[in-house]
This record gives sequence, structure tokens and C-alpha cells, in this order.
Amino acid sequence: MLPQELIRKKRDSEPLTADEVRAFIAGVTDDSIPDYQVAAMLMAIYFRGLTDDELGAWADAMVHSGDVLALDGVAAPKVDKHSTGGVGDKISLPLAPAVAACGAAVPMVSGRGLGHTGGTLDKLESIPGFRVDLDADRFARQVADLGVCLIGQTERLAPADRRLYALRDVTATVESIPLIASSIMSKKLAEGIDGMVLDCKVGAGAFMKTRERATELAAAIRVIGQAAGKRVTVVLTDMNAPIGRMVGNALEVRESIEVLSGAGPADTRELTVQLGAEMLLLAGVAAEHADAVARIEGALDDGSARAVFARLVEAQGGDARVVDDPDRLPAAAQILEIGAPTGGAVAAIEARAVGIGALLLGAGRRRVDDEIDPGVGVEICAHVGDRVEAGAPLARLHHNGRGVDDAAVRVRGAFTVANSASRPTTRIIEVIR
Amino acid sequence: MLPQELIRKKRDSEPLTADEVRAFIAGVTDDSIPDYQVAAMLMAIYFRGLTDDELGAWADAMVHSGDVLALDGVAAPKVDKHSTGGVGDKISLPLAPAVAACGAAVPMVSGRGLGHTGGTLDKLESIPGFRVDLDADRFARQVADLGVCLIGQTERLAPADRRLYALRDVTATVESIPLIASSIMSKKLAEGIDGMVLDCKVGAGAFMKTRERATELAAAIRVIGQAAGKRVTVVLTDMNAPIGRMVGNALEVRESIEVLSGAGPADTRELTVQLGAEMLLLAGVAAEHADAVARIEGALDDGSARAVFARLVEAQGGDARVVDDPDRLPAAAQILEIGAPTGGAVAAIEARAVGIGALLLGAGRRRVDDEIDPGVGVEICAHVGDRVEAGAPLARLHHNGRGVDDAAVRVRGAFTVANSASRPTTRIIEVIR
Repeated sequence: MLPQELIRKKRDSEPLTADEVRAFIAGVTDDSIPDYQVAAMLMAIYFRGLTDDELGAWADAMVHSGDVLALDGVAAPKVDKHSTGGVGDKISLPLAPAVAACGAAVPMVSGRGLGHTGGTLDKLESIPGFRVDLDADRFARQVADLGVCLIGQTERLAPADRRLYALRDVTATVESIPLIASSIMSKKLAEGIDGMVLDCKVGAGAFMKTRERATELAAAIRVIGQAAGKRVTVVLTDMNAPIGRMVGNALEVRESIEVLSGAGPADTRELTVQLGAEMLLLAGVAAEHADAVARIEGALDDGSARAVFARLVEAQGGDARVVDDPDRLPAAAQILEIGAPTGGAVAAIEARAVGIGALLLGAGRRRVDDEIDPGVGVEICAHVGDRVEAGAPLARLHHNGRGVDDAAVRVRGAFTVANSASRPTTRIIEVIR
Repeated sequence: MLPQELIRKKRDSEPLTADEVRAFIAGVTDDSIPDYQVAAMLMAIYFRGLTDDELGAWADAMVHSGDVLALDGVAAPKVDKHSTGGVGDKISLPLAPAVAACGAAVPMVSGRGLGHTGGTLDKLESIPGFRVDLDADRFARQVADLGVCLIGQTERLAPADRRLYALRDVTATVESIPLIASSIMSKKLAEGIDGMVLDCKVGAGAFMKTRERATELAAAIRVIGQAAGKRVTVVLTDMNAPIGRMVGNALEVRESIEVLSGAGPADTRELTVQLGAEMLLLAGVAAEHADAVARIEGALDDGSARAVFARLVEAQGGDARVVDDPDRLPAAAQILEIGAPTGGAVAAIEARAVGIGALLLGAGRRRVDDEIDPGVGVEICAHVGDRVEAGAPLARLHHNGRGVDDAAVRVRGAFTVANSASRPTTRIIEVIR
């Protein structure tokens, strides 16, 4: 069938068969369907959505557009986590070793930062020597040996997604729930996992601004998981204020090491524990939620998660001495303090503005080929609910001169100081198992 | 503004400013906006439509994407007709000379046939020597001298339309009313006319299957005309059975010469007279409808329209002797008669099936680069309402061997013979002035 006929069917809400979906994705993968037809299909999907059957077939075809990682040598149940992206979201760094320390395998393929959100790969690469470009064989071997490996997307992993992703960005079709869900799942399912936890961020600093949109995405993710015979748990978490205290690559590694040492900000630890517990439940390593929580907490508090992290860093070529001596991490040369304009309590910190502040300092990318400065970033000194005196530090900009004036304006503007404010008790909004 | 931002605005039904529309069409024209972004915009317009302001600006930008023909040397008021395409629709051939004979100028840029509908240019080119590729200067001179010239779209006439048209065809966005309307009007307004009559075909053999869709198109055409300060009359006409008796290029020229000689099938003459009368009213050559009708009828009956046609053929390099001696036109070598399966009355003739029959014989094109056989086609022997004996001819296939078996199946299937049937009295459904 001609591609325009498939586009017409979708345009008119006539269901596409699994064969038709496969043919379309095959044409996306081998470039036999030109960009303009793919673009028209994406816009038709934006307006018409995909039925559950179409969505399952679409994601499955994307998964099989490339290689599915062979992890047959891994005896442990394989689980992963994906976050829809936040500011200060370094959770994968303490989470993956903690879950591995508890006996599940974590074969994690991560992404890079773009815009105001950071990326796990950039954070890991701030550790001197750390390599994320391991090939599939070495990835599989490390997951088998160590229970965890963190790499970047390879050329052969869900290649259809790369083409669709690039086109969505320039055709105003990024915001389509089925396209977002299938993009996420195509990469995760290609890892050869048994189950996945989606950390779906909700709020002003997130891609999903409302709980309604987040719930829609959760449903689509679960449809795809079900079609693929994989267990999926979705956790909706609050993404209004930045997560933890640090935003910026090496700074976030520091905070991750704190969490791996049984300390760290309460919200960073909470997310690590709760998401980790859901992964253990999916893996069948724990049967009860309370037990799963206790096991992750134990791994963080008894040093076993930290030990796995040190071995992970070493196995991937990094300088594992940073775990004991975080001052070996790259650091910015200068610090600019942002003082509170008045005394009071921090009522809100706008995550997006802090993310943009860090981006302006060089911690992120405006364009995919921008260079990252690993040491720079924003340190939150007074978090939501904290009381401050006038002039006391709200944040510190760790910088190397670049973008500091603009970043200061952004970060200053991110804080709302009021007469009083309450401290949020949890970031977990809802768990959909 | 980035093209994707304009696409996003349209996608979200945020109004585009005239400047934004102009910028987008400029990018379409100079190829600075890639195909995939144009395709995404077309699909967004398919779903969201265009507001009246956007539609006026869109068509105007398309008109000015190329040259507007300079017809300042033409003193007479300039009017044209456009048909949305039918089967056996040769009306332009008798119409343009008849209107010119009455004192209005007709600068007509026509198209070629594609699929089951024929094209005026192909019909004209079946006259030996006839050329439709005159340049703008010669076109203007002939309109000034003779009152009429019929040419094909040049490279410089609404070039944005050529790119949009080609993309619509392969992205399932052909059926969008604002895109159809702006495509038609961009070419017609670039002719430098004062007014236009749109013959909007309605029915199973037409692009607009329902009166509702045709009325929508009429409204969009009138919005564009109004924005351009041009007078537009829309005539909805019936396109269920083929028009007149002949379908095929030289065959339709024959029928046109009959009409120009005061004879010919009643419906072909009716359409010529009624559309011509509307053109004279737009041109201000006649003030009253009855007078306008009388003038066109007069021009057909007194030989003056026929004389203009002969001069037109000669001026454009054709063998004008065909006007007196139509046997000089190319003719097919063989004739296959389709007999009535039973006696009765012809209740319906499906235009689309007859059009496809003619196409199969070689009268049309499946693809833009197909060669046309000028002599072949379908001759209707018994029209709707005619009584036939069993075995009496319903139609004759004029053929050169090619496609005759398949064509016979199609044409035979096009006829419904019933016990009784009424003869339609008019093809005019509604005139929207």
C-alpha cells in the first residue's frame, strides 16, 4: 500500500492493521518513505492519536527497527527506569547501583541533556575517564558481571526512533502522547528488559505540565508495555521545584554520592528509594512494598550501593577515587552568591528557570552539538519551605565566567520568597502499578 | 519566526498573521522551508482549516509567489472560468470564444488531465499544430488582439502552487477545502483578471461528491476573491453523468465545434450558455441575465463564436481547417460498440467509470508523464432518459487496440438500464453571485 494511503487512513481515523504499521515503520527505518510523508503521518497522528492496537504495533515495529540487546547471559531479572526529564534529576546515578546491589539487573540506556533538562550521560561523563559508548557485547558482559551498566543509545538501537524524533522536533509534533510513549518505550524495550518503571514528571518544570497529560502518557506507556508482555509501573512525581540541591553535571554526581552514602537531600533520597522499590517489586526481588523500600534504604545506608557505583565507575573507565574524594570531580573556578532580596520563607523555586540558569552557565546544550562545561551549575542553598534572612544565600552559581549575568537574573527570578511557606512532604503524586 | 513555530500555531488554531502567512509561502517558493515542514503544515491545515483572513493572505501570497500577467494593454474587461473538473467537460472550448465574441476578454490559463478527468490543454493539442506554451508577452498580445488566448501554466505563474500541489498529492492533503480553493485561485488571479466564474461540479463523477462540500468550496473561493477585490460567481453544476456525448480529446473538440455551430448536445450547450452569461454579467458587458443569455446564444447561433475559435486556433499555430472539416482531427482506427443488455431506458451513466474507460483507451494520464492518444475516447450513444432496444448501442469506444477490453468492462458497467427513466432538464444546481 502506498504511504499516502496509510496517511489517509490515519487522517480519516480508519484503523491501521499491524502489517500496515510495520510497513510504515520499515519505510521510516530504511528511508524508503520520504521525510514529507513521515511528517504528514506524524501530524495526522498528532490529531487522531493511535488506537491501543496501533500503538502496540507502532512501538513494537520501532523496537524491531534495530537490534534488541541480547542479555540471555544475565540470570537476574532485568529492570530499568525512565524519567520524562526534570531539573536536578540525577536519580539514575544512585538508583541503578542501589537496585543492582539488591539483586536485580539494570541494563540502562540513557540520553543526553537538551534545553533546560539535563541528561544522565552528561552527568556520568563529568567523572574523569567515564565512557558511555560501550558496545553491545561489553554492555551485556558488564550487566552480567556487575548487575548494572549505563550507556548511550547506539546506532543500532531503535533507529526508527532517531528519524521520527528528529522530524517531530521540526514539525511541531513533539507533544503527541502516542509519539512520546512509543519513542520512550522503543528504546527501553530494545534493552531486553523484563519490566520498567516510568518516572513521569508533572509540573511547571516538566514536559507534562498537568496531571491529566501525565496520566494520559502513563496509560499509553502501559498499553505498549502490555502489548510487549512487559510489566510497567508508572510513578507520577512532582517537578515544580528542582530536585535536591544541585543542578549541573559534576555537582549532581556529588549529590548522588551523598545519597549513595546514606545522606543527601531528602527528596533525592526519597525518589531513589521509592523508584528503586518499584523496580524491586517488578523484578520480583521483593514481594511487599515495605520490604522493597527497606532493601533499597539498606543498600544506601550500608555502603553496598556505593560499592556497586564505585565498581561501575571503574568498569566504565572512570576515576573511581571520586567516590571517596568528590573534590577530584571537575569544579567551576568561581562562585556567585544569589542573596535573598528580603527575609521570609522560600515559597517556590521555578525549576525551569533554574535549569535555564544552569544551561546559560554551560551545564547544558541549546543545540545538540553544544559543548558542556562539566563543573558549572546551580547550587540551591535555601529550598522550598526554608526560612531565610534578607541577603542570606538562596543559591550559588558555580561558574567559569560564561553566561553568569544572564544566569543570575534567571536564578534570582526563580525564587519566590514569602512571609511563610510550608515544606513539601513528598514528591510522589501517584503510583500506577 | 521558525517554520515549526508557524506549524505549531496552525496546529493549535492560533491565528497566523498576514506577515506569517507571507513568510511561510515565501519559504515554500524559494525552497528554504523543507518538504517535511510544508507537509506538516498542509496536514495541520487539513485538520484546522484557515480563517478567512488567513485564506485571503495565503492565496494572495501564492499569487505573488510568481508573476502576475500584465494585461494593461487589454481594454475589455477580463473574465475567466474555472471548472473543478468533470468527465466530458469540454466547456472551455466553446465558452471562451463565445464570451470573447460578445466583447469580454478571456485570458485563460488551463490545466492538463489527470486520472479520470480530462484537461483543456490536452483537448486543444489534439488539433494538429495547436500550441499552448506561448510566453506571457504573446499571451497578452493575443488577448488584446483577439479577446481570447488559452495557454498552460508557466513556470513563473504561482510557483508556490506547483510545490504545494505536488506535496498534497503524496501526503493525503488534497481534499482540504482551503488548499483546493487557494490552489485554484492562485493561478486564476495571476492571470490579471477582473472577475471569475467557478463551475463547481457536484456529484459522483466530481471531486466534490456532495452539495455541502461544493458549497464550502464556493464559500472559500469567494473569500479569496473578495480579499483580492475580484468579483467571483460560483455555479454549482451536476456531474453525475458525463457531459454531452463525447469523452476523449479530439472527440470533445468535435462536440465543441458542434456547439460553436449552434448545435451540439443540449447539456453542453446549456453549460456554455449559462456559464458564459455569468461571465458577461461579471464583465459588465450585459446587465441582465436574460440579455446575457441571449448574447451568448446569439454568438453561438450566428457563427461569431465559431469565427473567434477559428482565429484562435490559427493564432496558436493550429490547423484552423478542422473547424469546417472536423474529419481532419485525429481519429481512432477502430470502433467497438457497447450494446444494451436489455431493452428499457437509460437511468444513469456513471461519469467516473466512463472517464476511467477513456483513460484506459489512452485518452488520459494515470501519471503526469503518460503519453496521450488524441483520437481515442468514449462516445455516448444513449444518454440518460433515452429509450433503447436490447442490443442497441449505448456507447462506442473509439480505440487503437490499447486497453479496449478493460475499457469495455468499465463503460458497460457505467450504464444502468431500467424500465423507465426521466431525462434531466438542467445541469445547473445553483448560482451563487
